[in-house]
Amino acid sequence: MKPISILGSTGSIGRNTLRVVESLNGDFKVAALGAGTNVELLAEQIIQFQPRIVAVADEKCAEQLDEHLHAKSVTKKPKVSIGVEGLCEVALCDEAEVVIGAVVGALGLLPTYRALEAGRRVALANKETLVIAGELMRKAAEKSGAELLPVDSEHNALHQCLRGEQHAEVKRLILTASGGPFRTASKETIENATPAEALKHPTWRMGDKITIDSATMMNKGLEVIEAHWLFNRSADEISIIVHPQSVVHSMVELVDGSIIAQMGVTDMRHAIQYALTYPARLTSELPPLNLATCSKLEFYEPDTERFPCITLAYDALRTGGTMPAVLNAANEIAVAAFLDERIKFGQIPALIRAACEAHTSQPATDLETVIAADAWARNWVSEKIQRAASGSH
Amino acid sequence: MKPISILGSTGSIGRNTLRVVESLNGDFKVAALGAGTNVELLAEQIIQFQPRIVAVADEKCAEQLDEHLHAKSVTKKPKVSIGVEGLCEVALCDEAEVVIGAVVGALGLLPTYRALEAGRRVALANKETLVIAGELMRKAAEKSGAELLPVDSEHNALHQCLRGEQHAEVKRLILTASGGPFRTASKETIENATPAEALKHPTWRMGDKITIDSATMMNKGLEVIEAHWLFNRSADEISIIVHPQSVVHSMVELVDGSIIAQMGVTDMRHAIQYALTYPARLTSELPPLNLATCSKLEFYEPDTERFPCITLAYDALRTGGTMPAVLNAANEIAVAAFLDERIKFGQIPALIRAACEAHTSQPATDLETVIAADAWARNWVSEKIQRAASGSH
Repeated sequence: MKPISILGSTGSIGRNTLRVVESLNGDFKVAALGAGTNVELLAEQIIQFQPRIVAVADEKCAEQLDEHLHAKSVTKKPKVSIGVEGLCEVALCDEAEVVIGAVVGALGLLPTYRALEAGRRVALANKETLVIAGELMRKAAEKSGAELLPVDSEHNALHQCLRGEQHAEVKRLILTASGGPFRTASKETIENATPAEALKHPTWRMGDKITIDSATMMNKGLEVIEAHWLFNRSADEISIIVHPQSVVHSMVELVDGSIIAQMGVTDMRHAIQYALTYPARLTSELPPLNLATCSKLEFYEPDTERFPCITLAYDALRTGGTMPAVLNAANEIAVAAFLDERIKFGQIPALIRAACEAHTSQPATDLETVIAADAWARNWVSEKIQRAASGSH
Repeated sequence: MKPISILGSTGSIGRNTLRVVESLNGDFKVAALGAGTNVELLAEQIIQFQPRIVAVADEKCAEQLDEHLHAKSVTKKPKVSIGVEGLCEVALCDEAEVVIGAVVGALGLLPTYRALEAGRRVALANKETLVIAGELMRKAAEKSGAELLPVDSEHNALHQCLRGEQHAEVKRLILTASGGPFRTASKETIENATPAEALKHPTWRMGDKITIDSATMMNKGLEVIEAHWLFNRSADEISIIVHPQSVVHSMVELVDGSIIAQMGVTDMRHAIQYALTYPARLTSELPPLNLATCSKLEFYEPDTERFPCITLAYDALRTGGTMPAVLNAANEIAVAAFLDERIKFGQIPALIRAACEAHTSQPATDLETVIAADAWARNWVSEKIQRAASGSH
């Protein structure tokens, strides 16, 4: 029984990780769970999986959790920690051999870094971690010998395609993109899209933030940056192809012209299980992919005219340093404002571009520097939106 | 400069192998060439590649070759051998590290066996060798430590998909099939098809025999048997999927539900180069596959009702012993008779089935036994066709 810790256990990836742990009955056990404010679900997870340590957002959540556990007559209570420090405690929980990094946004940064410093295998679903601080994460992993395994379906696919290949014999990575709900929409339609329209993802069921990122295709741009850090490839060696059916999860082109692709059902549990059990592959409870019942598979070049976020991400990766952190933070604030109907869909890339242009990239030498760049971009974009709303400039 | 020998240098695979050798300028050199009756082309190949040994079909061909070389004032003539013994000499040519097995039909059997016994890497394009005598070939390779690398595009793809995988973690091999020219034709149309119709292959340009095999889908059936011997998989672990675009060359399904696929342009030089340079991948002069300009990729279950040769091949593999040799020989004779317009297309599977039913399978203990079964089936089917033609029964 390999013990694991989950950062973000009540989110979509966290819940699916627990389903995988359940299905692999006995191969893994839960050592620690880090959650936010969903203490009701966390209490259920504690009852079922009996972790030794848990983390919640704050003192109030800790009290609520205690009440829930008391109401359910739980006697064997875990140690409860709070905030980012609590998440770090979950990440560093002594016995955990694998840490699932599934906290959304920049919050996952420090706990993931701590787990990598400590030499743990990190199964990473939080792509912001690598976008903001990829260089630091890679250095920490290289120093401690920690393995960093991607849970993002595209990067997990790339990891699978690269299993038998030599670094020097890989020509490029090809990330597939569903194209999102606006794949065939006109530029004008996209610019004026409503949150309800943008949240209709054609193939994957995901959280709101990532679904909007899929609609702007910033999601794919962030994945390009993520792939850069995971697989040590330059921007020129990573490309995007639109594949609306999401059957091919990603591909690798070799120097001899061969393309190796990974396909599967669109269920996150596959990538989670792979990251937990690698290098072994275990039998899955998921239904197999039946290609004969799939729609025809289509592939298109991405349209950077209608989806300018792609170019913004490539530019930020090429600039390097703190620029990807600014890109990511500006995007988070812009997407939140769009979901609140404070800005139009078309303003998301415009705001990100403005923030990147206003920022002078610094070398990403330590976490403080990238966190400062992240904070700067959040403020800058928030203020810009507020000023526009109040009509001043 | 790695020396290679080519069995069947004037055929399609042989000529493409020489183009690959040329394109990899300096990595490989030609030690020996085995041809049949096309001495004019062989003479040109001798002038360009200067092999030390060549083989031709018979004494008459040897004389003609000498005349050609004389007419072109070639002074540095190779040693010329004839017949199957000549091919064996080419296969065993001292310095050759890789032997390309590209003789069509059962003729390649002995030279390939000799090369495997001698511990040479064999890049095999002659699938009949494995269909007829797979067990013997595998045993010879295991004994000598010879590597057997497939040049058939499907098996080459499987070899690539399996690079990073463990045998126990592979659930099944999935061979893709174009479906041939009669993919959407009715049973009646297929049964009465003419040679001209059957020779119109939708995606690959190949020889007549293999193109007819593609039209009956016996080609895919033979490939199932070939895959069995190459990858040590039972009939139940090998399946066929119809994929008219031939972009995905084959796939592997893992126990965790993941499918790894290999894609590429439809040019034999890719598989040839892979088999020559494995485990290295070298830059290719072939144009890369551009998925964005491909048609939509379709996948269908094969229809064994309209293409009974598939079931015949699976049955022969399950019976084992000399049965696959009988299947293959009966098919060769039936296809030749069809191309000569002596039988109808629909009689090809009927004759193969009859031959298999008339045969009592023997253990394939030695080459003599499988060659005897092969000869028996050829006679049996030829006589059956002749008797039908003369109206007697």
